[in-house]
Amino acid sequence: MIRAGVVGATGYAGAELVRILAGHPDMELTAVTSRQYAGVRFDRVFPSMAGAVNLVCEEFSVDSISEKTDAVFTALPHKLPMAFVPDLVKQGKKVVDLSADFRFGNVSAYELFYQPHTAKDLLSSAVYGLSEVYADKIKEAAIVGNPGCYPTSLLLPLIPLLKNKLLDIHSIIADSKSGVSGAGRSPSLTVHFCEVTESFKAYKVGNHRHRPEMEEVLSREAGEPVTITFVPHLVPMSRGMLTTAYSTLARKVSEADIRECIAEFYAGRPFIRLCPDNAVPDTRNVRGSNYCDIGFRIEARNNRLIIISAIDNLVKGAAGQAVQNMNLMFGLDETRGLSAVPFPL
Amino acid sequence: MIRAGVVGATGYAGAELVRILAGHPDMELTAVTSRQYAGVRFDRVFPSMAGAVNLVCEEFSVDSISEKTDAVFTALPHKLPMAFVPDLVKQGKKVVDLSADFRFGNVSAYELFYQPHTAKDLLSSAVYGLSEVYADKIKEAAIVGNPGCYPTSLLLPLIPLLKNKLLDIHSIIADSKSGVSGAGRSPSLTVHFCEVTESFKAYKVGNHRHRPEMEEVLSREAGEPVTITFVPHLVPMSRGMLTTAYSTLARKVSEADIRECIAEFYAGRPFIRLCPDNAVPDTRNVRGSNYCDIGFRIEARNNRLIIISAIDNLVKGAAGQAVQNMNLMFGLDETRGLSAVPFPL
Amino acid sequence: MIRAGVVGATGYAGAELVRILAGHPDMELTAVTSRQYAGVRFDRVFPSMAGAVNLVCEEFSVDSISEKTDAVFTALPHKLPMAFVPDLVKQGKKVVDLSADFRFGNVSAYELFYQPHTAKDLLSSAVYGLSEVYADKIKEAAIVGNPGCYPTSLLLPLIPLLKNKLLDIHSIIADSKSGVSGAGRSPSLTVHFCEVTESFKAYKVGNHRHRPEMEEVLSREAGEPVTITFVPHLVPMSRGMLTTAYSTLARKVSEADIRECIAEFYAGRPFIRLCPDNAVPDTRNVRGSNYCDIGFRIEARNNRLIIISAIDNLVKGAAGQAVQNMNLMFGLDETRGLSAVPFPL
Amino acid sequence: MIRAGVVGATGYAGAELVRILAGHPDMELTAVTSRQYAGVRFDRVFPSMAGAVNLVCEEFSVDSISEKTDAVFTALPHKLPMAFVPDLVKQGKKVVDLSADFRFGNVSAYELFYQPHTAKDLLSSAVYGLSEVYADKIKEAAIVGNPGCYPTSLLLPLIPLLKNKLLDIHSIIADSKSGVSGAGRSPSLTVHFCEVTESFKAYKVGNHRHRPEMEEVLSREAGEPVTITFVPHLVPMSRGMLTTAYSTLARKVSEADIRECIAEFYAGRPFIRLCPDNAVPDTRNVRGSNYCDIGFRIEARNNRLIIISAIDNLVKGAAGQAVQNMNLMFGLDETRGLSAVPFPL
Repeated sequence: MIRAGVVGATGYAGAELVRILAGHPDMELTAVTSRQYAGVRFDRVFPSMAGAVNLVCEEFSVDSISEKTDAVFTALPHKLPMAFVPDLVKQGKKVVDLSADFRFGNVSAYELFYQPHTAKDLLSSAVYGLSEVYADKIKEAAIVGNPGCYPTSLLLPLIPLLKNKLLDIHSIIADSKSGVSGAGRSPSLTVHFCEVTESFKAYKVGNHRHRPEMEEVLSREAGEPVTITFVPHLVPMSRGMLTTAYSTLARKVSEADIRECIAEFYAGRPFIRLCPDNAVPDTRNVRGSNYCDIGFRIEARNNRLIIISAIDNLVKGAAGQAVQNMNLMFGLDETRGLSAVPFPL
Repeated sequence: MIRAGVVGATGYAGAELVRILAGHPDMELTAVTSRQYAGVRFDRVFPSMAGAVNLVCEEFSVDSISEKTDAVFTALPHKLPMAFVPDLVKQGKKVVDLSADFRFGNVSAYELFYQPHTAKDLLSSAVYGLSEVYADKIKEAAIVGNPGCYPTSLLLPLIPLLKNKLLDIHSIIADSKSGVSGAGRSPSLTVHFCEVTESFKAYKVGNHRHRPEMEEVLSREAGEPVTITFVPHLVPMSRGMLTTAYSTLARKVSEADIRECIAEFYAGRPFIRLCPDNAVPDTRNVRGSNYCDIGFRIEARNNRLIIISAIDNLVKGAAGQAVQNMNLMFGLDETRGLSAVPFPL
Repeated sequence: MIRAGVVGATGYAGAELVRILAGHPDMELTAVTSRQYAGVRFDRVFPSMAGAVNLVCEEFSVDSISEKTDAVFTALPHKLPMAFVPDLVKQGKKVVDLSADFRFGNVSAYELFYQPHTAKDLLSSAVYGLSEVYADKIKEAAIVGNPGCYPTSLLLPLIPLLKNKLLDIHSIIADSKSGVSGAGRSPSLTVHFCEVTESFKAYKVGNHRHRPEMEEVLSREAGEPVTITFVPHLVPMSRGMLTTAYSTLARKVSEADIRECIAEFYAGRPFIRLCPDNAVPDTRNVRGSNYCDIGFRIEARNNRLIIISAIDNLVKGAAGQAVQNMNLMFGLDETRGLSAVPFPL
Repeated sequence: MIRAGVVGATGYAGAELVRILAGHPDMELTAVTSRQYAGVRFDRVFPSMAGAVNLVCEEFSVDSISEKTDAVFTALPHKLPMAFVPDLVKQGKKVVDLSADFRFGNVSAYELFYQPHTAKDLLSSAVYGLSEVYADKIKEAAIVGNPGCYPTSLLLPLIPLLKNKLLDIHSIIADSKSGVSGAGRSPSLTVHFCEVTESFKAYKVGNHRHRPEMEEVLSREAGEPVTITFVPHLVPMSRGMLTTAYSTLARKVSEADIRECIAEFYAGRPFIRLCPDNAVPDTRNVRGSNYCDIGFRIEARNNRLIIISAIDNLVKGAAGQAVQNMNLMFGLDETRGLSAVPFPL
């Protein structure tokens, strides 16, 4: 059994990691850290896991985590991981970091949208953990920067099309909608039930930090600079993310062409599901799972593609993809621990 | 007091009309019709209105409605109203029809997306009831085709900009999100609580019947044919509609220019509220009210405008705008009966 | 116009007071205070009220409020009001306090469950503001202690029966369910959307501070000490409160007897609605309104009464009843400002 | 592998059975029937299961099901199963029926609340499938009547106490709250999203058909006739059931005594979780799992016990307990296929 630890286990992404790892057939959860709940049994913080998780939350220390684990998931706010991940890597640990700290190849983009980077040396060896696209590099990596939820939801449907030069790269608009868990577990007025229910609104219009992350990857795959318009919205639901992307087509293609392009690119990758004709993705269908469902339409009159993806922001958008990446890093089948069937409702 | 009747009073738009009219200072609700509940007290169907509405639902007949009312609101599925609205108009009644039957100037567009029109004669005199834009014509009309909810949410923010030639008319994309009440009160799997909650999805992608309605009005205001991309989505909430529209700018303008353009166009119109800088519309802020809140950003790097509107689909998107139109038709202040302050939560 | 002020206007009860007063035909809202938002326009805090409320939040001071208002609503946490309400009363202001500070006749009960009382002199003249029961005293009062939401929901259905000796006073159980707004607007994990949605749970089992408040009033009306069992629960909704109360019947009575007892007691009181036979209260029917809907069944096999009430916890359970009380204190009709028809959905 | 079939697979309980069986390590799902969707791929009806379930829905026939399966789950409305379950049993199949048809020992109680019973011969050999209480008999049974959701939620906490004579059996009141999925998948106004959200109400007050089912079992365990008061309520959530039960204590006991009584009775049974002191059950903690969480308080002043249980109505209240029973019938560990860790949110 691979010994796994979760640093920052009592946020939502952290707790979701704990849930998945508690049922992982090849990994054993051996350490959970939490500053806020140090000394408290994990199942007192998350009673849903009583009977499944017997660990007590501990304060993080490099020594303790290094001693207890082989695989480390860091689920902390950006800026914190880059302070200690280099030490973990030196200890020979494999690390999947869920913050933004190791996602960017271009350090100046990171520094523009976040803060000065204090572990630049590691950036060149860190791999962007979009599992279906960069599996080969992930398998060799010691440190993986796990993608943001919005980037995952946009990049998975777009990359096959970009690589095949099907899109006018100046025309891409991503209108995304996220459940509330994406805002994290810390209390604030933004996530107050009474402020969210029966409310729908955009936020950080054109200005969200996931945009430069998307643009870096899209530009890399397109081979030229891509700028997009990105507007996230908040949906009165707990989990789930839907991105509706719009792009002018670069050349005349049929819906069958689009289907084939995507199907071929993701052949053999079990977490990508292309919706049947006439069906569209629904966040409900991927809830609690690592699936990314994709559907699309061509609007011939405007020569425009409408392509839609649905993920669970906490699973494929965070903890699930992180486990998928760690599976790859340890040479396991990428589906290990991730095969739960989503609820029918 | 103007005597008002609601035909089709037990659907959601009909019931909302009843609610508003029950509190209208210049109108008295004198008849409610319902095929399904004929003979049943209205407040047994909608117990929230016990104490406020004492009417019994009756079967519709032209004679009875003509005798009892001066102002008629028809809140029935399309196709039904065009069969009898001509008779009501002949009886001298003023009619606001909430179906699509009297919204189109171009009968062939209507017939393409709906069915053969059986009251074409009336179409030329019917006025499209977008209150803030066509108030002058509405005041003179005998029959008003009340706009669809999606068209209202898109047209109100776009028309001032179109008229001022600020938008590239080939670039307009409307990504709309609606609460469930827009699907009506008839039971179906689509509106089952368990299918809706924790679900977010698109529907009728590129193919919704409100698109031709929007395009007809946009084309008229732009003075040339406008085709748009329109994708509606279903939000797990009861009331509310948000439209996020994207358009390339036709020329270099500042956010202040956009603000001035809209503010000037709607000067003195109390139901249009421009969000302060840095604020964005939220459906919660207009819930139960006739307001349309509008906010926007210019994304200079892409020369693109992002403009967002929020309405209550049952009020400004249906019953509220209908009452506003009837107020105009009877020479009343347009706000009569519509001044309830929206809930803070 | 009576000049009205709301102290603590940016909590949920305070904001609801502002909403109601903004539409009150006989009161003019002249001051709103908020420590957190002092200096900020009220409609920037609650954008739903843009266009209806033009005031700026101010820091509270006795002098300023005394100068600007005739009627003062205090919507602050308990302990704060008793520090300054005596001064307001001395200035001749009429005060409705929404905290617990002026609800108890028995100061030792208050001190047992809250803290030492610093305005005991005022307690004897303060009137418990259960409008339908104590209207006569309220009309004469300078200071009214507005009832808690749970007490309102239990006392209104039970008092007529207690006064008529129909209940076994040792058998009363109140199983109450409240929407989340009852927990207030301050952020906490308890009110985080993701912790509330798809969750139902009890809290403060047998131990809630509204229990002694209920028992004091029930004992007064019964003429002997009443102890009850009270369990509140949290419902994943924003507004609304339902109490299902159980009691063994003290003597053999029919459902018609119960109906008559309640109907007679509340004859002419417009906010009490008895559900028709076979119907039951639903929080949706009273949402946003000052109604209290009551329904019941006798279970003959167990000689037990099941009686159910529904209120909007923010209206009849807080701000609405407060305005109703102030109406009474100023000799107005009790329905002034409170006649909005509840939504059909 | 045991070959398993689900009859009535496209209702909510049926689909939940399919979900669980699709991940069961010892059972293989070999047939799903559906009248409404015969001929349609199951994953077109429930796209969440695409990739996990490849079956096509078929019309039910005894011959086909007998040929394809060893274990049959019938998830149909009552009355239908008793028509064909005898034939399945004759074919040597083991059957767990989720309807009420095989729950009652007392046929006249069944006939009073349902309809004439057409398979009375089988009733004496059918076992009531409350897994933790009747495991020994279930292991020997050919046909198990799977308990109703409300009965499961009440019986599990009460039976240990009743058997130990701790409760005054004339004082039991069960105030239950259920998510909407309990009403099934058929569309109706009752389950319309707009009628449910922001609504809380009781239904079938004192009159629900699960009451006689509970009373039969309680009476059997108490050794004398028990009558209870039972009021179910509808919660605006999809899954989950909470029962708050009240009973006068038959003798003086401490909370530690109660805890010990329950813990001892369920020793070694992994799906019963007793909440730690000061904690209470929350439906969120059991969502998607087969757990029943139990918490309680003694109210000494009234000599009353308040005991609360939480289950997922579709899992422990239906499909999960059904699989648990089938595990027992086939000599498997009762947890097989049921060990998914519930979500933290």
